[in-house]
Amino acid sequence: MTTNDDNIVKIAKALSDKTRLKILGEIAKKKSITCSEAEKIAGLSQPTVSHHLKILTEAGLLNTVKDGRFLIITVNKKALDEFSGLISTSISK
Amino acid sequence: MTTNDDNIVKIAKALSDKTRLKILGEIAKKKSITCSEAEKIAGLSQPTVSHHLKILTEAGLLNTVKDGRFLIITVNKKALDEFSGLISTSISK
Repeated sequence: MTTNDDNIVKIAKALSDKTRLKILGEIAKKKSITCSEAEKIAGLSQPTVSHHLKILTEAGLLNTVKDGRFLIITVNKKALDEFSGLISTSISK
Repeated sequence: MTTNDDNIVKIAKALSDKTRLKILGEIAKKKSITCSEAEKIAGLSQPTVSHHLKILTEAGLLNTVKDGRFLIITVNKKALDEFSGLISTSISK
């Protein structure tokens, strides 16, 4: 068991849910959103969005920066690229 | 919900388990294995290996070909590469 495998498992779990893919896609499309905008993502309740944002953030797939009294959320595309690299490394090791 | 997202979810679920990553890594290292060799992968019982091989195969991550009375299993590296592409497409759409 390597740290690479731990990271793959964490990110793969975060990506293995349609709602989270939808949230990631929406944030990427808008480039960045605030927390309150995230709560308005089509057809989802605030607790549902919060739950999924937490999982995506813990997997390193979202960046959150404070801008005054707003939290700005962006997709961490570098982490997604690195995930692809981790898979190749792990499977080909 | 797109077919792309369905595929991402299926493959991400298959990759979100340490044991399955271990099995994939072992098969890739040996290039190909038979079903009975797969059952000998370090420290795993035959039913456990069978269960994980089924999930990996259903996600399209393993190729299985019949060679006489043996089933030969290989890693579908093309599917892994396509998975990375699907993520980029889905998140950037």
